[in-house]
Amino acid sequence: MAGYDQTLRPFLWRAERLYPDREVVSRTHEGIERQTYGEFADRTRQLANALSDLGVDDGERVGTFCWNHSRHAEIYFGAPNIGGQLHTINPLLPPEHIQYIVENAEDTVLVVDPSLLEPLEAAYDETAFSSVEQYVVIGSEVPETSLGPVTDYESFIGGQSIEYDWPELDEETPAGMCYTSGTTGKPKGVEYTQRMLWSHTMATLTPQGLGVRDADVVMPVVPMFHVNAWGIPFTATAAGAKHVYPGPSPAPEDLVSLIESEGVTISAGVPTVWLGVLEYLEENDADLSSLERIVIGGSAAPKSLIEQYDDLGVDVVHAWGMTEMSPVGTVAHIKEGLGDLSTDQQYEKRGKQGLAVPGLEFKVVDDDGGEIEWNGEEFGELYVRGPWVTDSYFERPDANEADFEGSWLKTGDIVTVDDEGYIQIVDRAKDVIKSGGEWISSVELENAIMAHDDVSEATVVGVPHERWQERPAAFVVPAEGADLEEDEFESELEAFVGENYPDWWTPDTVVFIDEVPKTATGKFDKKALREEYATEGLLAEE
Amino acid sequence: MAGYDQTLRPFLWRAERLYPDREVVSRTHEGIERQTYGEFADRTRQLANALSDLGVDDGERVGTFCWNHSRHAEIYFGAPNIGGQLHTINPLLPPEHIQYIVENAEDTVLVVDPSLLEPLEAAYDETAFSSVEQYVVIGSEVPETSLGPVTDYESFIGGQSIEYDWPELDEETPAGMCYTSGTTGKPKGVEYTQRMLWSHTMATLTPQGLGVRDADVVMPVVPMFHVNAWGIPFTATAAGAKHVYPGPSPAPEDLVSLIESEGVTISAGVPTVWLGVLEYLEENDADLSSLERIVIGGSAAPKSLIEQYDDLGVDVVHAWGMTEMSPVGTVAHIKEGLGDLSTDQQYEKRGKQGLAVPGLEFKVVDDDGGEIEWNGEEFGELYVRGPWVTDSYFERPDANEADFEGSWLKTGDIVTVDDEGYIQIVDRAKDVIKSGGEWISSVELENAIMAHDDVSEATVVGVPHERWQERPAAFVVPAEGADLEEDEFESELEAFVGENYPDWWTPDTVVFIDEVPKTATGKFDKKALREEYATEGLLAEE
Repeated sequence: MAGYDQTLRPFLWRAERLYPDREVVSRTHEGIERQTYGEFADRTRQLANALSDLGVDDGERVGTFCWNHSRHAEIYFGAPNIGGQLHTINPLLPPEHIQYIVENAEDTVLVVDPSLLEPLEAAYDETAFSSVEQYVVIGSEVPETSLGPVTDYESFIGGQSIEYDWPELDEETPAGMCYTSGTTGKPKGVEYTQRMLWSHTMATLTPQGLGVRDADVVMPVVPMFHVNAWGIPFTATAAGAKHVYPGPSPAPEDLVSLIESEGVTISAGVPTVWLGVLEYLEENDADLSSLERIVIGGSAAPKSLIEQYDDLGVDVVHAWGMTEMSPVGTVAHIKEGLGDLSTDQQYEKRGKQGLAVPGLEFKVVDDDGGEIEWNGEEFGELYVRGPWVTDSYFERPDANEADFEGSWLKTGDIVTVDDEGYIQIVDRAKDVIKSGGEWISSVELENAIMAHDDVSEATVVGVPHERWQERPAAFVVPAEGADLEEDEFESELEAFVGENYPDWWTPDTVVFIDEVPKTATGKFDKKALREEYATEGLLAEE
Repeated sequence: MAGYDQTLRPFLWRAERLYPDREVVSRTHEGIERQTYGEFADRTRQLANALSDLGVDDGERVGTFCWNHSRHAEIYFGAPNIGGQLHTINPLLPPEHIQYIVENAEDTVLVVDPSLLEPLEAAYDETAFSSVEQYVVIGSEVPETSLGPVTDYESFIGGQSIEYDWPELDEETPAGMCYTSGTTGKPKGVEYTQRMLWSHTMATLTPQGLGVRDADVVMPVVPMFHVNAWGIPFTATAAGAKHVYPGPSPAPEDLVSLIESEGVTISAGVPTVWLGVLEYLEENDADLSSLERIVIGGSAAPKSLIEQYDDLGVDVVHAWGMTEMSPVGTVAHIKEGLGDLSTDQQYEKRGKQGLAVPGLEFKVVDDDGGEIEWNGEEFGELYVRGPWVTDSYFERPDANEADFEGSWLKTGDIVTVDDEGYIQIVDRAKDVIKSGGEWISSVELENAIMAHDDVSEATVVGVPHERWQERPAAFVVPAEGADLEEDEFESELEAFVGENYPDWWTPDTVVFIDEVPKTATGKFDKKALREEYATEGLLAEE
């Protein structure tokens, strides 16, 4: 190979050497915690030594069960830089998903926030967790826990040297892993190589990506267990920017307070978060003058949201990506030459998923396998490829066959492309429900409901919801002879689903129907249901 | 390999599809020529077909002997995108270097500007040029020439289809080649793979690199035969920026006229060019209000140059690189946190070679093989490595042994690094004088001597010395009207240099000469001096 390997190491090296005093800031339960890049790098090397003692430098995985804080960021570099892997786990997943993920990834170490110990304990399964040699609880004391062997993070790294001679890694070394919470079946693991994360970092640094500069103060609100917080910890470090991590379950007032006190210039998160901040601002005074832009992803940004932040002088930039893409693929910048469009026309562009960042290629394939015209009308499935797009799932040949075609990843999103090249998602090939930045598998929820004795058939679709973007609505065919009322069955279902799933999975609405409409191939025809009930206004009730 | 190959193809694809109407503009002898990215891409595919007919798609090389214009830019993409190579040749080299280069690269096609036919004909050698199957002269007619077979560029591509199905290239495919015009020995070839050029493009797109946006209008004055015009044709295309090519031998008035008429926002070139523009502006009115910044490289930017452009509202950004580095390595941005420095302190930083761009690593090694302190005082040789840094010369195992060490390229530059991480070149490794285990910077000593009123020009070389290994000898061109004797001036100089430097820095010998010999690129030719005086035995006297 000509040219040196593409790895994460130079990004941390550059931040430490060029910006030793720039800060990495975290909100914690105890208040604001600050460290410099110099201290951050020292601690990362201490962590590296501790992880190496457990053999993680031999390509093993560190599972994290953590919110957004600087300790988590230390693992972002500490595990990959020694040749190990950062494996972020979404603590909001159902226990059996967590079991599957830990078992499939064979995590050697699990690092967990004190506030997330309970769901981890609840998911604990002797067989699934058998690979785990060490549990590490963030902080400087070990709470009462059934997990073991366990230590606290500060003790784990405390006695270690701040020296570590980072190895010269092959760029194909796996650096991290993240599971998609798929709509059907088990979560699928995506392994990120050093080269993929390097490429993604460079692409997001560019002005066509997120355009992060050293003068920026970057606050990822998007959880660090969601596709590496969209890569922001890596990008901000490569830029030499200041990091601000909002800690566990930040409320709108926490975010506003951090923006004010730390001078945040760029933040990123799902629409729900920023709607919450707007609500807070209606009742409270705040100075958001430092905030230049908010990167919104996870689901589409409503126009009213963009407008209201415009009024505050904050640019809402819509971005789109996937776990399989490290994740960023498109950013809805206003292109050169479109600055003269009317505000409404600009909102139309800014509300779309956006323009492909440099280095990515895409095509949109219709039912016949041909490429669509870029006219904003025709639609087809979006295919992408690029150096930060995976070419397979981890140990899932079945899924690989369905989701990849030659060098292309089939995204499962149905899109249009307008004559300026802006991509817009108009439907999903799969019917996942996006609720407040989290995905609910409609198929899984359907199966859960259909397990109820009084249910013959059920289907679930996402209902538009102002705050959560979508909430599940269940269409239920009662079993023969069952004596049910819709209203009563709603609370009955809540308890029933709640036995195995988080309560936010429970459908907000239950509608009784005579039968579930089917497609020609016998699949639930959700499109027909949506159309019928949208016309009748039932879904709008919500 | 996980993640799709890193190649140039997506950059051209993105420009064509997202910015079909954005312009690629050239100054020609006949006036300004304009085309859109759409037309540019069509012509590039026509060229691709013509080159494929000659078998260039099988990894062969297209030598270019051309100034900066859009036809040259078409070759920048047309040759690499089919799996061939762009091989830019410096027409200012001595004929025997050109012969060596064409023979060593085995160019299949040579594309030449009409105004450069004469030097190419002068360099023609039957054996050296035996690989050339086709000469192509830019334009739509073939001038009288001794070269053959020959055609004109428009005829060459004219009959070809605008369709070409770009292949899915392996990123390790060589995409281009450039020879360093070494001061000693034969030129050394550097082969750029697709992956190296992709990485360099991404690094220069970032704000820490050149920060090119789609709204930019980019004019590379640096010749396209100098390390791919510092990569700018690739970077500007990836950004979707407008290109402005200043054509053959542009005079200052041509550059100013293009800035005014095309709204150039970023330009790039050596200091001499920008000094010429300043002189022109003293006598002529001009509107440079569109011009935001000038990237200066090739040699250090004098402080007065930076100051004068500051007064014009134009930011001079100093950058440094090497042919071996594709070429950009450092850019002298003012870092976050240094905005409060005094103007003079900022000039001091901006006059240095600058800060390493993200993705690059460097170290500075002293005589004992240890790394120096970053204190702006200690110096040593600069070593670099990164995805766009070559790991070997083309067919030159002898040079590889000297210039590479493990994964590192030994740059041959002697540098300091200050406590903010700014690199400053103080000498070339071969010119540094090693006296009794200590290093004397010949460049610094030259500047000290040239500060003397009676000195017009001076250069310093190391003289072999039995006890001290080397001692400095100064070659001085006395100022006009200065009445000096060599002997007397030696002690005069001792006192003068001694004011600011240790007395062991004082030259042991002073030799008066009529002028300092210069290389083809205008640098002091110390090799010529060494050879001349070594032959005459003057240096041996010491």
